[in-house]
Amino acid sequence: MTNPPLHKLCLVPVAEDSDFTIYNLPYGVFKCKSKKATVGVAIGDIVLDIAAVYERGVFKTCLEHNVFLQDSLNDFMALGRPVWKAVRENLQAWLTGEIPGWEHTRAGIDYWPIHQVELLLPFKVAGYTDFYSGEEHAANVGKMFRPNADPLLPNWKHLPVAYHGRSSSVVVAGTPIHRPCGQFLSADGVVQFGPSRKLDYEVELGFVIGTPSELGQPVSTQDAMDHVFGVVLLNDLSARDIQRWEYQPLGPFLGKNFGTPISAWVVTMEALEAFRLEGPEQDVPVLTYLQDEGSHHWDIQLEMSIRTKDGSQAAVSKVSSRYLYWSLAQQVAHHTINGCNLETGDILATGTISGQSPETWGSLLERTFDGTQALDLAGFSRTYLEDGDTLVYRGKAVASDMRVGWGAVETSILEAVKSK
Amino acid sequence: MTNPPLHKLCLVPVAEDSDFTIYNLPYGVFKCKSKKATVGVAIGDIVLDIAAVYERGVFKTCLEHNVFLQDSLNDFMALGRPVWKAVRENLQAWLTGEIPGWEHTRAGIDYWPIHQVELLLPFKVAGYTDFYSGEEHAANVGKMFRPNADPLLPNWKHLPVAYHGRSSSVVVAGTPIHRPCGQFLSADGVVQFGPSRKLDYEVELGFVIGTPSELGQPVSTQDAMDHVFGVVLLNDLSARDIQRWEYQPLGPFLGKNFGTPISAWVVTMEALEAFRLEGPEQDVPVLTYLQDEGSHHWDIQLEMSIRTKDGSQAAVSKVSSRYLYWSLAQQVAHHTINGCNLETGDILATGTISGQSPETWGSLLERTFDGTQALDLAGFSRTYLEDGDTLVYRGKAVASDMRVGWGAVETSILEAVKSK
Repeated sequence: MTNPPLHKLCLVPVAEDSDFTIYNLPYGVFKCKSKKATVGVAIGDIVLDIAAVYERGVFKTCLEHNVFLQDSLNDFMALGRPVWKAVRENLQAWLTGEIPGWEHTRAGIDYWPIHQVELLLPFKVAGYTDFYSGEEHAANVGKMFRPNADPLLPNWKHLPVAYHGRSSSVVVAGTPIHRPCGQFLSADGVVQFGPSRKLDYEVELGFVIGTPSELGQPVSTQDAMDHVFGVVLLNDLSARDIQRWEYQPLGPFLGKNFGTPISAWVVTMEALEAFRLEGPEQDVPVLTYLQDEGSHHWDIQLEMSIRTKDGSQAAVSKVSSRYLYWSLAQQVAHHTINGCNLETGDILATGTISGQSPETWGSLLERTFDGTQALDLAGFSRTYLEDGDTLVYRGKAVASDMRVGWGAVETSILEAVKSK
Repeated sequence: MTNPPLHKLCLVPVAEDSDFTIYNLPYGVFKCKSKKATVGVAIGDIVLDIAAVYERGVFKTCLEHNVFLQDSLNDFMALGRPVWKAVRENLQAWLTGEIPGWEHTRAGIDYWPIHQVELLLPFKVAGYTDFYSGEEHAANVGKMFRPNADPLLPNWKHLPVAYHGRSSSVVVAGTPIHRPCGQFLSADGVVQFGPSRKLDYEVELGFVIGTPSELGQPVSTQDAMDHVFGVVLLNDLSARDIQRWEYQPLGPFLGKNFGTPISAWVVTMEALEAFRLEGPEQDVPVLTYLQDEGSHHWDIQLEMSIRTKDGSQAAVSKVSSRYLYWSLAQQVAHHTINGCNLETGDILATGTISGQSPETWGSLLERTFDGTQALDLAGFSRTYLEDGDTLVYRGKAVASDMRVGWGAVETSILEAVKSK
């Protein structure tokens, strides 16, 4: 164990504050000029064309076909953990000279400057399930919407509450989103139509399913991780006024499905291994199928900022994912206990992540008490989002010399589309 | 207009009670022996291999590529109404001798006996949205679950309530489904785990989206039909005990996503044109974007039967889709008013269809008052479904000499999977 750490050996220069270290190697899909879209890996300031790297023979011991020569990660994600691990190890070996060949690579063929490429949606989204796994968030919402009752509903500590989101409107970082129009009630209870007045973000992580499961076959907490390829940042944009009026009795619909930005980069579970930890103690005993002996939580630091059209910028929510009550393995086991099957490209999102102090609350609904208390930020104030605002969502995990991150998920809010 | 009606000219024999007349020509995907899966059209007792029909030049004026030589309808459905109509017209012309060639066709090449083929899921399901558009159903449920309040919630007549369902567990007719396990409350309010005790069906139609729409661009009621390719029968299997415990505050999840059977055949909107009608009067004025001048309702007769493992069979729900309060065009306009985009392969389901008398109620929840009043059927009785039951769901539209139907959607209920 006297080998120098990997980052000292890395042949690609990586700035100290880069999200894209040799410990990370996140996957995305990119195109550049006339080059067609293929799978890429970010490191430092470049994007490796992994389809070209494949052609150099770097993965010859673990991959029979060039699954990277296409515009989504799905085929690669379907291959399973042994292949994911082997590809990562070979890539690290190649980037540190253990597998020879890096010195023959050329810009514009094997790699491209990251600021010159266009990043696309990294995978074809199959199902999108949104959990509600943050206790502080659920309690904050409960206190606002049901002030005279328990903050948590009776089922909340017995099962990870979830609903199905909309896959079609999941978009890659950088996609601007129009303020949605819809129905909501005026303050005096009249049905109104117009642009939402309560446009909000939600700080979430989205776990991405690689290996599918079969209809009728539950996946246990012990086996759950076999199915999870990686993690994206996910900003679950919400129109609170539309949501409030529509959601009884069947849950959120148009209040949520007008655009859900995710990061262009999928960080693998292997890259996050060093940041695993135990979750909070679960103070209500759970049924056998939800018992989880593993450490299926991660300490990922998340930060949502607003940048105004004048260029002022301020962080509004800063929180760690360690606050989530329900673990990833519990979410997978619950999702499948009735036989529901997982598909390659499914997103299992955490729901809004909030900590205990107001700065850690992961939505404007919470930060501004449903728009009743404006937040004073760096020279501007906000209740809900305004047209021209750009959300800047970042996440990172840091431990001694290691750093892993997603880059920024920027989402500009455009004015509502005029009715025809 | 002295031409004989089409069915008198049809070169394929079609029994009088067949669902698959020359007016229907529904699309599916089939395979047979070693033949790989391709698109088929049912007529009489045979399935036409439409990929082979294409090779005979029948569609040369309207189709440049053989979009039928694959295992889903999605590429064909994405082509839009002018192509759908032209293909239908050419096919009808060919089947009546107006376009020559039928006499040269051969069994095992151009067509197959329908009972020899395996029918697959006809299209890759993109999103699955389930509306709640039946007034009688919503009121029946409201009376049971909120006996001291208005049967309909305040939003119900202002907007077509809907939620996102799960696409991965949509299965083709004939797929058996295991009774789901899950959490529910005992009669005295204790959290329990086990096989659902309240397994139910729901009589629904699923409209299938062909032409996609763009994120951020609402589709008006006037333009809605441009996007709708056809209709499937959809049985929204539900576990009422699981649903009841989980659904607050975010809606149904595991109570619904363990298996959703649809018909193997997609009946086109062209085939249903003769059965269009006005919907019920809407007694609460709707916002401008929901105003619908067209006749976007259909008179389709639906029947759900239970067949026991002893072979006894009885109809439990018989209802017409004309009872739906919200029209298809209103559903499309509402779904997209916030900018949510439609994708080829989306299902927009109606929600349970119930009429006014008990025989017309479209679920056992309603028929048995949540299992409290057993139904006496043909030599057997039921509250909820039992292991070994087979649901037989049929639909047809009939007018003078025309008949259009879906064949049967049979779904056997298997015992719950044993926990590992």
